This record gives sequence, C-alpha cells and structure tokens, in this order.
Amino acid sequence: MIDDIQVTRKIFQQYSRDFLENSQVDVIIAGAGPAGLTAARILAKAGKKVLIIERKLAPGGGMWGGGMNFPVIVIQPESKHLLEEVGITVKDAGDGYFTADSVESVAKLLAAAIDAGARVWNTVTVTDVMLRGDRVAGAVINWTGVELAGMHVDPLTIGADFVIDGTGHDACICEVTQRKAGKLHTPSGKVEGERSMWADVGEQTVVENTGEVFPGLFVIGMAANAVMGAPRMGPIFGGMLLSGEKAAREILNR
Amino acid sequence: MIDDIQVTRKIFQQYSRDFLENSQVDVIIAGAGPAGLTAARILAKAGKKVLIIERKLAPGGGMWGGGMNFPVIVIQPESKHLLEEVGITVKDAGDGYFTADSVESVAKLLAAAIDAGARVWNTVTVTDVMLRGDRVAGAVINWTGVELAGMHVDPLTIGADFVIDGTGHDACICEVTQRKAGKLHTPSGKVEGERSMWADVGEQTVVENTGEVFPGLFVIGMAANAVMGAPRMGPIFGGMLLSGEKAAREILNR
Amino acid sequence: MIDDIQVTRKIFQQYSRDFLENSQVDVIIAGAGPAGLTAARILAKAGKKVLIIERKLAPGGGMWGGGMNFPVIVIQPESKHLLEEVGITVKDAGDGYFTADSVESVAKLLAAAIDAGARVWNTVTVTDVMLRGDRVAGAVINWTGVELAGMHVDPLTIGADFVIDGTGHDACICEVTQRKAGKLHTPSGKVEGERSMWADVGEQTVVENTGEVFPGLFVIGMAANAVMGAPRMGPIFGGMLLSGEKAAREILNR
Amino acid sequence: MIDDIQVTRKIFQQYSRDFLENSQVDVIIAGAGPAGLTAARILAKAGKKVLIIERKLAPGGGMWGGGMNFPVIVIQPESKHLLEEVGITVKDAGDGYFTADSVESVAKLLAAAIDAGARVWNTVTVTDVMLRGDRVAGAVINWTGVELAGMHVDPLTIGADFVIDGTGHDACICEVTQRKAGKLHTPSGKVEGERSMWADVGEQTVVENTGEVFPGLFVIGMAANAVMGAPRMGPIFGGMLLSGEKAAREILNR
Amino acid sequence: MIDDIQVTRKIFQQYSRDFLENSQVDVIIAGAGPAGLTAARILAKAGKKVLIIERKLAPGGGMWGGGMNFPVIVIQPESKHLLEEVGITVKDAGDGYFTADSVESVAKLLAAAIDAGARVWNTVTVTDVMLRGDRVAGAVINWTGVELAGMHVDPLTIGADFVIDGTGHDACICEVTQRKAGKLHTPSGKVEGERSMWADVGEQTVVENTGEVFPGLFVIGMAANAVMGAPRMGPIFGGMLLSGEKAAREILNR
Amino acid sequence: MIDDIQVTRKIFQQYSRDFLENSQVDVIIAGAGPAGLTAARILAKAGKKVLIIERKLAPGGGMWGGGMNFPVIVIQPESKHLLEEVGITVKDAGDGYFTADSVESVAKLLAAAIDAGARVWNTVTVTDVMLRGDRVAGAVINWTGVELAGMHVDPLTIGADFVIDGTGHDACICEVTQRKAGKLHTPSGKVEGERSMWADVGEQTVVENTGEVFPGLFVIGMAANAVMGAPRMGPIFGGMLLSGEKAAREILNR
Amino acid sequence: MIDDIQVTRKIFQQYSRDFLENSQVDVIIAGAGPAGLTAARILAKAGKKVLIIERKLAPGGGMWGGGMNFPVIVIQPESKHLLEEVGITVKDAGDGYFTADSVESVAKLLAAAIDAGARVWNTVTVTDVMLRGDRVAGAVINWTGVELAGMHVDPLTIGADFVIDGTGHDACICEVTQRKAGKLHTPSGKVEGERSMWADVGEQTVVENTGEVFPGLFVIGMAANAVMGAPRMGPIFGGMLLSGEKAAREILNR
Amino acid sequence: MIDDIQVTRKIFQQYSRDFLENSQVDVIIAGAGPAGLTAARILAKAGKKVLIIERKLAPGGGMWGGGMNFPVIVIQPESKHLLEEVGITVKDAGDGYFTADSVESVAKLLAAAIDAGARVWNTVTVTDVMLRGDRVAGAVINWTGVELAGMHVDPLTIGADFVIDGTGHDACICEVTQRKAGKLHTPSGKVEGERSMWADVGEQTVVENTGEVFPGLFVIGMAANAVMGAPRMGPIFGGMLLSGEKAAREILNR
Repeated sequence: MIDDIQVTRKIFQQYSRDFLENSQVDVIIAGAGPAGLTAARILAKAGKKVLIIERKLAPGGGMWGGGMNFPVIVIQPESKHLLEEVGITVKDAGDGYFTADSVESVAKLLAAAIDAGARVWNTVTVTDVMLRGDRVAGAVINWTGVELAGMHVDPLTIGADFVIDGTGHDACICEVTQRKAGKLHTPSGKVEGERSMWADVGEQTVVENTGEVFPGLFVIGMAANAVMGAPRMGPIFGGMLLSGEKAAREILNR
Repeated sequence: MIDDIQVTRKIFQQYSRDFLENSQVDVIIAGAGPAGLTAARILAKAGKKVLIIERKLAPGGGMWGGGMNFPVIVIQPESKHLLEEVGITVKDAGDGYFTADSVESVAKLLAAAIDAGARVWNTVTVTDVMLRGDRVAGAVINWTGVELAGMHVDPLTIGADFVIDGTGHDACICEVTQRKAGKLHTPSGKVEGERSMWADVGEQTVVENTGEVFPGLFVIGMAANAVMGAPRMGPIFGGMLLSGEKAAREILNR
Repeated sequence: MIDDIQVTRKIFQQYSRDFLENSQVDVIIAGAGPAGLTAARILAKAGKKVLIIERKLAPGGGMWGGGMNFPVIVIQPESKHLLEEVGITVKDAGDGYFTADSVESVAKLLAAAIDAGARVWNTVTVTDVMLRGDRVAGAVINWTGVELAGMHVDPLTIGADFVIDGTGHDACICEVTQRKAGKLHTPSGKVEGERSMWADVGEQTVVENTGEVFPGLFVIGMAANAVMGAPRMGPIFGGMLLSGEKAAREILNR
Repeated sequence: MIDDIQVTRKIFQQYSRDFLENSQVDVIIAGAGPAGLTAARILAKAGKKVLIIERKLAPGGGMWGGGMNFPVIVIQPESKHLLEEVGITVKDAGDGYFTADSVESVAKLLAAAIDAGARVWNTVTVTDVMLRGDRVAGAVINWTGVELAGMHVDPLTIGADFVIDGTGHDACICEVTQRKAGKLHTPSGKVEGERSMWADVGEQTVVENTGEVFPGLFVIGMAANAVMGAPRMGPIFGGMLLSGEKAAREILNR
Repeated sequence: MIDDIQVTRKIFQQYSRDFLENSQVDVIIAGAGPAGLTAARILAKAGKKVLIIERKLAPGGGMWGGGMNFPVIVIQPESKHLLEEVGITVKDAGDGYFTADSVESVAKLLAAAIDAGARVWNTVTVTDVMLRGDRVAGAVINWTGVELAGMHVDPLTIGADFVIDGTGHDACICEVTQRKAGKLHTPSGKVEGERSMWADVGEQTVVENTGEVFPGLFVIGMAANAVMGAPRMGPIFGGMLLSGEKAAREILNR
Repeated sequence: MIDDIQVTRKIFQQYSRDFLENSQVDVIIAGAGPAGLTAARILAKAGKKVLIIERKLAPGGGMWGGGMNFPVIVIQPESKHLLEEVGITVKDAGDGYFTADSVESVAKLLAAAIDAGARVWNTVTVTDVMLRGDRVAGAVINWTGVELAGMHVDPLTIGADFVIDGTGHDACICEVTQRKAGKLHTPSGKVEGERSMWADVGEQTVVENTGEVFPGLFVIGMAANAVMGAPRMGPIFGGMLLSGEKAAREILNR
Repeated sequence: MIDDIQVTRKIFQQYSRDFLENSQVDVIIAGAGPAGLTAARILAKAGKKVLIIERKLAPGGGMWGGGMNFPVIVIQPESKHLLEEVGITVKDAGDGYFTADSVESVAKLLAAAIDAGARVWNTVTVTDVMLRGDRVAGAVINWTGVELAGMHVDPLTIGADFVIDGTGHDACICEVTQRKAGKLHTPSGKVEGERSMWADVGEQTVVENTGEVFPGLFVIGMAANAVMGAPRMGPIFGGMLLSGEKAAREILNR
Repeated sequence: MIDDIQVTRKIFQQYSRDFLENSQVDVIIAGAGPAGLTAARILAKAGKKVLIIERKLAPGGGMWGGGMNFPVIVIQPESKHLLEEVGITVKDAGDGYFTADSVESVAKLLAAAIDAGARVWNTVTVTDVMLRGDRVAGAVINWTGVELAGMHVDPLTIGADFVIDGTGHDACICEVTQRKAGKLHTPSGKVEGERSMWADVGEQTVVENTGEVFPGLFVIGMAANAVMGAPRMGPIFGGMLLSGEKAAREILNR
C-alpha cells in the first residue's frame, strides 16, 4: 500500500541529502546545453564533483529544436566522436557532413553526464556569482518560479572552485559578473556580443574563445563566442562539444 | 570547411525524408511523458512504426520536476523493472519505497524509446483527431509556435492505426475527440475529470483505466485517470509506466 | 567571519527539519487571514500541531488594506477581546463601534499564532485535498512560484486530521473538494457563492456557517459565508475572529 | 475521393522541392512591401532567382491601410506607370495628384511579382545576415511563430548574392548588420533614424538613398530613408516604387 | 511639388465618397477568405453592389499560410477552374491532386474580386447584425483598432439586402445573430460547432451546408460547416471556392 | 508663496467633508453616461442628494466617441430639448435628424448635472449592492485602481434610498444584484442581454424598459435595454436622455 | 421613424465636412489638459481656427483625478479668474488657497473652449510633426486605436501655422521634434526632463518656460517645465492656466 | 446591530484624522523592510513622529521569504539583540550562526515599530521627493493602485525633516532624487548599483554606507549598499538591522 505522506517524506529526504552534499562543489556549470553537458561528463568522469544548474524545467538548451524546428543537427567529422561515445546515432549526410537526431542527442548527452556522476538541478536560476576577493567562488541561485513570478525573495549561495558559463547567446553569468564584479578578460572588458552567423569561422573561434574570462569563471559554447565578439554558428554543434571538452581539460589541469 | 548553406540543406533533406516517411504510421503517441515513452519503447521494439508528437520543445512532461521542484521521483517495487531496464539508477528508500532522479529518468526513458525505433517530433501540437467514419484514423497537427502566436494557419494530418492520448491531466486528445467527434466510453460519455489526490487508489486505477475510449483512440497515464474520473497520484510513477506498458500490449494483441 | 555557504546550509538544515516534522500534522489551515490566525492560535495553544499554509509571500489576507485602502478596521464589542488578548490597540469610535489599525492587527494576530506554536509556510499554495476514502486527510501543495509561472511540476502531500479552509471569498479548498471529491454539506452540495453585502446579517451567519462541510474539512471566516450563500461583511472583522475561535473549539472537542 | 494524408504529402513534397531550390538564390528581399515587390518583379523578369521573405502571414507591409485606415493611397504622375503596368486602377484626383485603392494595389503588385517568377516565403523572419568575410552573403531565417513564442530554436541560413532590406521604418536588416557585422555606408556608420514627415523632400531622398550600404546589402523604400536619416513620407507611394525599381536596375548592372 | 496637406485631402475625399456610396449595398460579405472573395467576384460581375468587410489589415484569411506554414494549397479537379479563371498557376501533383502557391492564390482571388467591382474595407470588424423585423438587413461595424484597444465607442450600421458570413471557423456573424436575434436554421437552432477533420466528407458538406441560415443571412466556406456541425477540411480549398460560388448563384436567383 | 503640504491638506480636508457628507444620499447613480447625467441633473434640481459614481477617470461613457470615432451624435426632434436646455449646439441634418458634437455634449451634460447639485466621484467602482432585507439600500464601492491592480482590499458602503444602474451594455449593477441578491423583474429573472441593433425599436423600448427591476434598484439607458432583452441603438442618443428623465420623474414621484 | 443607415450617413457627412475644413488650421494644440483648453479658448475667441487633438477618448488630462484620486484641485488667487470666467465654483479654503471640484473644472474648461469655437478631435494621436524646411508646419496624426493595437498603418498630416505641445509630463511633441527634426531651444538642445516637486518654484517657472522651443512649436503647461528641466507642481493648477493664457497671447501677437 | 454606513464613517473618520496628522512628520521611511522597521522603532521610541510608507499591501519586504522560499533567516551574534528585544525566537545553529523564523521576524519587527508609535501607510508609493531649495523636505506619494493601473492622476506631498530610503535593491528614492534633483554623495554622484554577493564584506559595508546621501535623505539597509556600489548579502539580516539602528541614532543626534 502506498501512503501519500511517505511519498512526500522519501522525496524530501533524498532531496535534502542531495542539497546539503552539493552546497559546496568543485565545478558549477550554469546551463545544461550540449557544451555544458559534455564538460560535465568529462569533469565528473575524472572525479570532480560537478553541479549543473539549469534555469528551465528541461535541460538541453537550444539543441532540442534542431534548425528552424526541423529536429536534426549537423556535426563535422572531427567532433563526431563526442556524440558517438555517448551512443548517439550519427548519419553520413555526404560532402563531409554528418547529421543526428536533435532529441536523441540531448537525451544521451544528458544521460551520459549523469552516469558519469554529475548532478543536475533544474528549475533553478543562477542570478549572480559569489565573490571572495576578486575571484568567483560560487553561484547565487534562486528558484526559477520565484524569478518568473517576480516574488521578492532572497537567493542562496552554492560554493565552487570554478563556475562555467554555458548559458548560450546571452552569456548571463559573464554579463552579471562584468556588471557587478568588474572587468572581464575581453577586449573591452565587457561582454562583446555575438556577431553575425558564419559557421566556418564560428566553429573555430568557439574553441579558441573557451577559457577563463574572470578568475574562477570559465565560458564555453555559444556563450564563449558571445563574450568575445565572435560569430554564431546555427544548428551545427561540433565546436560546442569541443568547447565543453576543452574547458573540462583546462580545469582538470589546474 | 563548413558551408552554412550546406548545413541548411543537410538538415532539411534529413527532415524531409523523415516527414514523408512518417505521414502514415502504426501508432501516434501524443505527449512524451513517462507513460507515452514507455508505450513507445515497447511498441517500437515489437516492430511498430511509432511517432511521438510532443507539444513542447522538450519531451518529458511533468516528470522533470519531481515533487514540488525537488527533482526526485518515487517508484514501487512492482514497476521498478520498467526504470531499471532502461538503465535508471533506483535507490531503496526503505519501507518498500524506491526513488530515482527525475532528470535521469526522463533522459533514459526518452533515449530508450528512440533506440527502440520510435520517432519524436517536438514543438508540434496535436490540435484535433482525423476521423474516418466513426474511427480515429490519425492526428491533426500544427507547429506549436503557430498555435502560441495565434496565427491563422491550417494544420496538416498524419495517419495512424491507433492514436494514444498521453497528454496528462488535461487529456487533450480525448477532450477534443469528445467535443468534435462524439461520445467516449466513459460513464457520462465525456471526460470525467480527475479526482483529488489518493496515491494508493490512483496507482491502481491508472492501469485499470488504460484502454480504448473511442474506436482507434487509447488513453494512458494520468490522462487515463482524468478521462475516467479517478484520483491523481502526484510524483509517484509506477502506475504511469505500467499504464504505458499495458496499452502497448493491447495494441500489439490486435 | 560570515561564510555564504554556511548561511545556505544553516537555512536549509533548519527548513529540512521543519519540513519533515510537519509532513503530518493535526490541523492544516489554508489561508492566513484573521480567522485562520485566530483558529491557529487557539488550536496551537491547546497543544495541537498546526500548520498554516499561505499562498502569498505575506500572510494577512484582506485585512492589511482596511476598507478601500484606508488602513482601519471596525470591530464590535463582543469580539473586541480577540484583538485585545493579542495586544492590539482598540479605539472606541462611539455608537458601539471600535476601530483598530489594520496593519497592527495583522502583525499581532500573526505573532500570537506563532508564539502559540503554529507553523506558517508562506509562498505555498494548497492546490487540492488528499483523500482517504471519503474523508479529507491532508492537503496537496505546491510552490506558489511554480503555480504562477505555469510550470508543469507535480505537487506533494501533507497529512492532517483536519483541514480548515480559511481562503476567503473564493473558498478555494471547498471549491476543489466539491469538484474533485464529492458533495459538500450545503443546500446544493456545491459552494453556494457569497451574497451581497449586509454587515448585520453576515456577521451573524459567518459564525453559524462555520463548521465541517465535508468529512475532515472545516470552513471558517468569509469562506464560510461564501460556501453557504450568506452575505459578505466588508471591513468589519468581529465575526471573522469568532468564526476562527468556534472552529478551533469544535476541533478540540472531537 | 480525397485522402487527408495525401493532402499532407502533396503539400510537403511541393514545399520540400521549393525549399531546397531556394536555399541559394540570386537576391533575397526581406519585406514584401511595395518597394520590395516592385524590385522583385523587375529582378525576376530579368531572369534573377528572387526570394522574398516576409515576417507576417500576409505580404503588403504598410500599404494595406492607406492613410489612417482610409484605404486609399496617393501617387505622383512620374511613378504612375509602376502601378499601371501591373493593372492597378489609378484615378486622377486633380491638382497633379492621383489615387488608387490600397487593397487593390497590394494584391496586384504581389501577383505581378509572383507572375514574374519571384518566390514569397511568408511567416518567416530574417533574424540576422550571413557573412562571408566582409560581405553579406545570405540571410539567417527562422519561423515567425518560433520568434513570437520565444522558443529557443536555432535558425537556418539561405545564401544569396545580394540581400535587399525592404523592412520599412525599422530597417531591421541594416540594424542587425551594423550591430553584428560592422559599419554601414552612412554618415555615422549606423542607422541614422528617419526624420519628421516632409513628403516633398522624402519622396526625393528615398530614391537617392536607395543603394548598397554594406557589401552585398542594398536598402530600399522607407528603410532607405530611415538608414540615411531622411524624412518619412506617409501614404504617398511614388518614391517607394521608384526606389524598388532603382535597386533592381543597379543589381542587374553588376 | 507634393504637399502633405493635399495628400490628406485627396485620400479623405476619395474615402468619403466611397464610404457614403457604400452605406447601403446589395450584399455585405464579412470575411475576405477564399470563399468570400469568390462569392464577391461572381456577385459583382453580375452587377451587384458588393462590400467585403475584413477584420484584419490584410484580406486572405487562413489561405496565406497553406498547411502548417508550408505555403502550398491543394485543390481537386472539379474546382480547379475557380483558381484558373483568375489566373492562378495550378500544378498537377499526381493521383488526382493539384497544388497552387498559397500566396499567389490569395493575391489573385483578391485582385479578381476587386476587378469585378467589389469593394474591400479592411481593418473594420462586423460586431453585430442590423435587424429589421425578423430579417438581417445590414451589418453593424466598428474600426478593428477600436475593438482591439477595448475603447468604449459606438459602432455604425451599413445596410444590405443580404449579409454573407464568411468568417471561417468561428462563424462570428451567425454566432452573434443566434445570440442576439433568435434561432438559426440548424438542428439545435444554434451554431453547432465544427467537427474533427475529415477532408472527404467536409469538402462535400461545405457545399451542401452553404445557404441561408436566418432570413437575409447566408453562410459560406468553413463557417458553413462550423454552423451545421460538419467536419473541417484543412488546407484543401476546393469546397470553399464552390461554396462561395453556390451562395452567389442563390442570391442572384432571388 | 505656495506650500506643498498646505496643498495636500486643503485637498484632503475638502475631500474629507465631501466623503462624509455623501456616505448616505438619496440616489446613487452608477455610471456617468448621458442617461445617468440627465437623471442626475433632474433629480438634483428637484432637491435630491445625488451621488454619481464613475468607474473611469473621465465621466461620459460611450458618448465621447460618437460613431466609430467620428465625434458626432444623432438626436431626434422629440429629445432635442434635453441637449438644448444644457446649452449644446444642435444642428439640423435634414430628413428629421439632428446632430451634435459628441465632445461638447458630454462636457455640457456633465457641467449641468454638477451645477444642479449632483456630486461625481470618479475612479470609484461599484462592485456590489448593499442589501437591507430584500431591498437595495446602497452601493458597495472600491477604488478602481485597487480593482484593476487586483489588490485584495475590502470595499466600503454608501447608503441610498435608490440606486440607478446606468452602466450601459453590461448592466453591471443589475448583473451583480441578480447573481448575489435574487431575481430581477425581467421575464427570466435574470439580465436578458441586449439584442441586435435596431434603432427604431431600441429608441422606443429604452424608455419603456426604464424602471425599477428590483426593490430600490432602477435601470436606465442602454442598461435598461440590456436587462430586458431589447435592441441596442448605436450613436443615437434621444432614447437614452428620455430614459434618464423618466427614471428621475418616477423617483421624484415616490 | 429612425433609420440606422441614415444615422450612419448623417454622422459621416458631418464628420467629413469637419475633417476637410480642419485639414489646415491656424493652431493645433496637442493634448486637451487645462493649459491646452485655456489656450484654445483664448485663441478661438480671438478668431483663430483652433484644432485640439487628444489621444484619449476623454479630454481633460491629469485634472480629472485631483490629488491622489481625491477629486479636488487647488488654485491660487492670481489665477482664480481663469476658472471663474468659465463658470467654475471656486471655494475659499483659507490661508490664501482656493479649491475647486476637479470634475467640474474639466467639464467647464472644455465646454468653454468649444463655445469659443475650438474643435476637439479625440481618440487621435499626434505621432510626429510635419516639417517645412526648419519650421514645424503641422502635425502627423493617426487613430489612437491603430497605435494601441500596433497596426502597421500610415498616418496623415494636418497643417498649422503653430503647433502647441500640451501633452504634459512626457512633452511628447517636443520629444519627437528633437529626436527627428533637430535641436530645441533648451540648455542641452534636448528635453531636459522635469525635476522633483516644488510647487512654489514650479508654479513660477511654468509660466516663464512657456514659449516657442522650435520654430513653429510652442510648449505649455507641465510640458513646459518638463522640457526646460523645471520642477513639477502636483494638483495645483494656477500656473498651468496662466501658461495656456501666455502662449495664446504670444501667438496672437505674431 | 451593525450598520454598514456607520462602518464606512468610522473607518473614514479615523483615517481622516490620521491622514491630516501625518501630513507633516519628523521622519518618513520609504519601505517597511527589516532596516526600515528597526529605524522606525528606535526613532519613534525616542519621540520622533515617524511615518512608514510601504508600496505593497503587506510590509516586510524581502524578509518574508527567507532564502529561496525556505522561511528561515540567519543572524550573527552581534545583531541578535535587535531581534530578541522585539521578542523573536533566535535559535543557535552552531558555528556562530543563529537562525530565526522569517515570518515571525517580520510580524514582530512590525508590531514593535507600531507599538513604539510609528505609523504605517501601506498600498502607498513614494514616487518622488519634495524639494525645498537643495534639501529633501518630504515625499511625493500616490496610491499604489493608481500607479499599477497606469492612471493619469497627480500625487500629493507629505512633509518631513528627513526621508529615509529603505526600499532595498533598487534604492528607488535615491534613484529618483539623483535623476530629478541632483548629485548624490557617492563616487559618481549617481546610484552605483549593488555588487555581487559577498556576505562577509556586505554585512560590514551596509553599516558603513548607511548615512545621508543628499541633504535630508538617508539611505539604509540593502539600499545603502546598492547606492554605494557594495556587495549584496542574501538572507542574512544582521547588517540590515544595525544599519537601521545607525541611521536612527544619527538622526536623533542632529
């Protein structure tokens, strides 16, 4: 026999353990898009305590919709392995292009990150960073519902050695860090803003731009191009995945 | 070198093949919640051509948020296998209750349905059913963006031997079928509306209520209880999964 | 030195204890208006475990605004003691009428209920009742932010021997109980709806109408008149307070 | 006998051919107002492959409403032929002014552009330009429904030798090009913004201002005056049509 | 030299003549969709004074968007002539189906109706019918902007021998006539509501259901099926056009 | 020298006297349209204490906008005196019709009512009636701002021998009285709803329908036709004014 | 017998004459607040052709609501005559302050302006000015409904020797003139923005700041202080009325 | 027997006395958060006439919601007395941290301020300051309902020797003072904006930053850090309370 009250208790006890265990982690990844999920998988596999914080109910970011709601993504040969090693079916589309199902891709990148040991908190928004001196030392979070409803409620803080901004085009974490904490490592010291679509260039720069833009704060994926004033790429995801991989490697090397 | 126009072509060609191949299928499942994904997996594995149509950008329905945004779900011993056989980590929470991570659960139920051969079309809304005589013979669909933006645009039709309503509390497909096509197989001939939460009873009735409510139209998961006037269950998912399994078995036996 | 992460931990640990302790209580009071706060104070003082669940960020309901935003309330001689015994300054306004400051009144009714031992959970909405057989056995709750943002997230359940509907004009708990669980003890079996303002009659009926309208479900304050089809009273609060007192007494006598 | 599924297939097959054929064109015209339709007609007649992309469901822009919803437009003698050669009835209103029905004018400018061979994609929004080096080499597009609904979905790209901005007062394509790709050929390098109404001057400048404002990007119609800081003209359409004609001629001369 | 004030005067003088000339007409057609435009063309060609009143800025109704924003429509052999006689390019799609470009189709049906002599007033909403005894004798109209902005402004009345409801799925004119003026000639006396999609049946019934549903009030196109409780058809337009033709013939025979 | 604080005091002192003086009046008129203003003028001139309560910032109702925003109204010979005796310029438009400027008409009907002694409270909404036994004995009011902002604030009550519903098409006061207090003196006991436009009949019935529909509650103007199921009239105001005059006479005869 | 169609014709004929007569006037006053109405009265009385254009349905601006919805205004001795000469009852409130009813004040200022010969067009918005060389030579207008509904419709132009900006705090006409046509006669060349409330100073500056800020463009009332960076005054209206009077005198002296 | 009209009169009479008595006070505190309530209590206890003006219906600001809706706050040892002296239960949470119930805390800080003699006006917004020369000499107020509903209604003014900005993160009063009245005593002369969360630093700076930022205008609590560009602190309230205490002491020392 099932007892509703026991259901409440079992859920909350599990959550409570999880919440307290994750109040201080090694790496916080804001945004569960393809770059963030790839970084999370590699970091967690290497033994890091990783917490992914996703604003929406569903992780996956802009990958679900493929291009113009046609649920297909494109991938280049050199990043194909990052889809295949999590079990995603990659089809040869000719001329050096490969495609994959956008829905399958999200599901498996997500499952793989969790299997590697990363934790995902969804419906939670990173609203600010926590500072210790001139270093980002964690993330300030609140329920997304509280934010959307415009309720006046204080946030809480989760500590981390590194915070990764994987929030995409808006580069929310870099934006708030620049506005509230100081200059970023960019030409103008600010978020430069993404430039017009140019897949060939954007795919290359997204990996080059991946890195630490403020002590303790890394930027990956489309957020990296947005922060550094580089082109956007559209529904081609190779550079994104490589960017997540690069950030993970750099953090592991510290 | 990547060419943006080639990206457009490769995505559209893949989509185009996929769209035309799926304009007539064996089973359409409206709503990619846990019941729908389980039904899809079993049907596809048995060789049926299955098309899941999901209104939102992300499949998963109400499962992502666990209970009250605490991302944990509860499961009973008798349905544990339906999580475990898709690789979800199930924890013993004592007293005969088991828990799982809600985000992991969605990701893996979804991945498993796709691996079994089911297709998922997201950002597409089922707005009506297609009738042939007194039988549901397909689904009428439109882009969710068109619906949300209130644009006056005609829908298209996808044919199917069976349509499964897995849209949850609102039982949208049953609702529109009753309103436009006739009486359902329910006490009043209409959608009865779900009753107050009573996990113990709801878990039992959700399986009993799973079935064909109009020729060609099955109802599963919370939609089944909503249609038949049975209790809702909250963040306990055993009955949901068993309901999806039952509908799949019944359709395979036709 | 203050550590942000410790602040997070201390708050959550305190909340966690509180949440689990209150997953099963003696009485749940939905709505922290004057009637609910008075009932809570009396029940808690008598040793009952009382949980007040308030939808908004701030308890107090319609009392804060006095009449037409003029922050003054009126009270009759016979209920004056219910304000005075919690320390509210009551002024003689002549002709048998007394007034009090509306803001002071809320603050002190609330402080007194808490001092008596009642717990208040704010920003939580009661969305349904929990049934066990034909009896209300608890409340189904969700974050108000989740409800306002329209997020698709399952609720949780809190068990109680009695649930009191103190939600005012809409009588939300009675409304949902009737719609989902069955007939109320009212002439039509439904919520009758409040009638036009008639202070003299309304003040009398609000006490008469206070009581159990469904097994396990009490109704108090303006909700009592709304459920039974009696007049509303406006910014006169004597009957409200007496209604809260009466419900508390009846529950203590069970 | 009509089969709903066949209707779906026939529509999609036609669309699919059309989409792939138009993934690379000679000229993209953003905005199906009178200037854009005139340019499209002339370019297409001269053998260019022309794709008009219109954000709304209905092409026509601001011409449908005449002046203040009085469905009449005014035209000067020197541009009268551009209406008459597509069959629009032009009335002599005395004093050197001619009028035409605003609804008839849109319908026939549109029909004539299509008869000349131009393709119109409606409900599609140009959200950015595609760059190749320092040259606009195409347009980045998405469904208007996706944009209006705020869904997080990546766009696709259509290649073109020239893009024409015919989006009117906001000069959207010039605006995004300046913001994301660099300086325009204007005094400040930015969109200057339109000046107060002065029909006599605006009619003259709209033709003068028509031209290439960034390599590969032409601007026509009211957008031309908006980009160059010239006056708006109101419901007089002679200059608009001449502007479309001029841009077409210049492109044909390349 | 152009003078702004003269532009104002010329536009208003033309509108003023037009408004007064059309304050009493032979036939008012509410809704400029394909059925309404076809009816208008035939009636005007036969010498009737026809006024089309369109709520939106752009006539065309649901035809612009084809099916699911794929700008293509389907037509059957028996109604092909109604497209071809207004110059629309019809392609043979095989299996007895023909397609046409949805944008071209609207433009040319509209141009043809105007060329035949019909007047179109756009941005005007029919909010009610005018009654004389038990007969519809005209339409009550207001600016659409006034309606959308919720301004409290009285409407005006245009007289007509017949009013045709071509407002599509909602059958607005029939709906308001039933609610305010009395019973319609339908099974229940009310608007029955459209039934689920079934192209084969709907195409047939839309012609059968075309007719006079209240003295002086005709219904055509999708509104005819909606009023009589018949199926919808989706992006296939043969029946629509035939319906418009039938209503025109019946009115000419009075 | 002007002192801001003195301005505050002088305004509030004047308001305070006015508020208390008008907490009990002879007649409350809800809605400051032409019928209400005419009734107010006649009643006040005859010595009655009259309080007009207007929901909006500006009195005048639907009269400001004339017909379709053309600021002109029409009046018949028999009611012309009701405009002329307050100084409104009435023009002979031929054929037995007279016109007046709609803006001038509101200004002078309003000024005349005030000069006769009526008080106007604007930005105040009548939300309910006050009952004493089975008779309407006053109006329940709140700030319109409170209502529009959805703030939970109790209303106050103003006593009156008679309440007149002059709220137009919605007949708000009759509607709330029927819903909360009982049956009206109408065929169905409810608000019947206005019928389609028929000026000739509506002008006649609006006077006939003027009267007491519930003890203590009169209805006038368009509200009278709405309550009794009679036609609306559009921008012709003779019957409206005669209706206000008739109600005033009847009340004076009690 | 009244004929609905005749009502339409009589209203439109009157409007048509009025519209054409006023397409070129001596003075356009944008905004029908107390300053604008006073200026209009004086100018019209002196024989000028005056057109007041009011964005809202009701003229009167911020005067209807008195202070904080208490419908009372304050006036100083030196401007008392401007209320009294239009028949407004002014009460002595002691200490050199006088009060008037805010509703009565609007009604009578409005009636007096109309009696003096000024025309009022309500529900029309001035969206821009018309330029001839470097001089404001008229106003660009559109229906307010069109603006509120966001419809894409071109405006029309009304010519005038002078345009007066009486639009209050936002000084809309000055704002658009500065942005589109050039520098204003203010310290920064822009609208300076109003400063914090200081009745004593504001009352004085509002008269001083009244004047021509751009060739052909006068500014009056609160707009004058807003343009010149002077304090706002609140519900004291002496300076407002004197400002309107001053502008009128200056224009008459040209 | 209760009479509704008497209720109206008694409430208004009490309000009227209160309004006039408080039109000139010693100190206005904008914002009833914890800092403002503490300042109010100390000032009122010392004999100052204190008026708290709160924009919302309920005082309490961001304290009700604890951290992330977990209704618990944290306090340090050195400010514990400010909670305990108003009777709030403070629990030792170990490691030098103390917690309190967030709801209890608001109720008792509020009750204590009122008991000390402070007046609270809720649902009133401070929209501007009153200036006398270069000194803030009061607050400009309006009903919050008027502001939220966007009604065009003038505000009123309340005089005070000092105004305290306790409006939290937005520092609304400082913001409007800077924009309208001049430079603040901050590095840039403007509101600097709060910096990222750093509890340890923020707790210290909030007390240091408390003070007079413009003649007559004090800033306290989170507004103090926001104005001076210091870090935010989250749900730790020690510094807030000490800030309120400090401002009160400084004002008492003038």
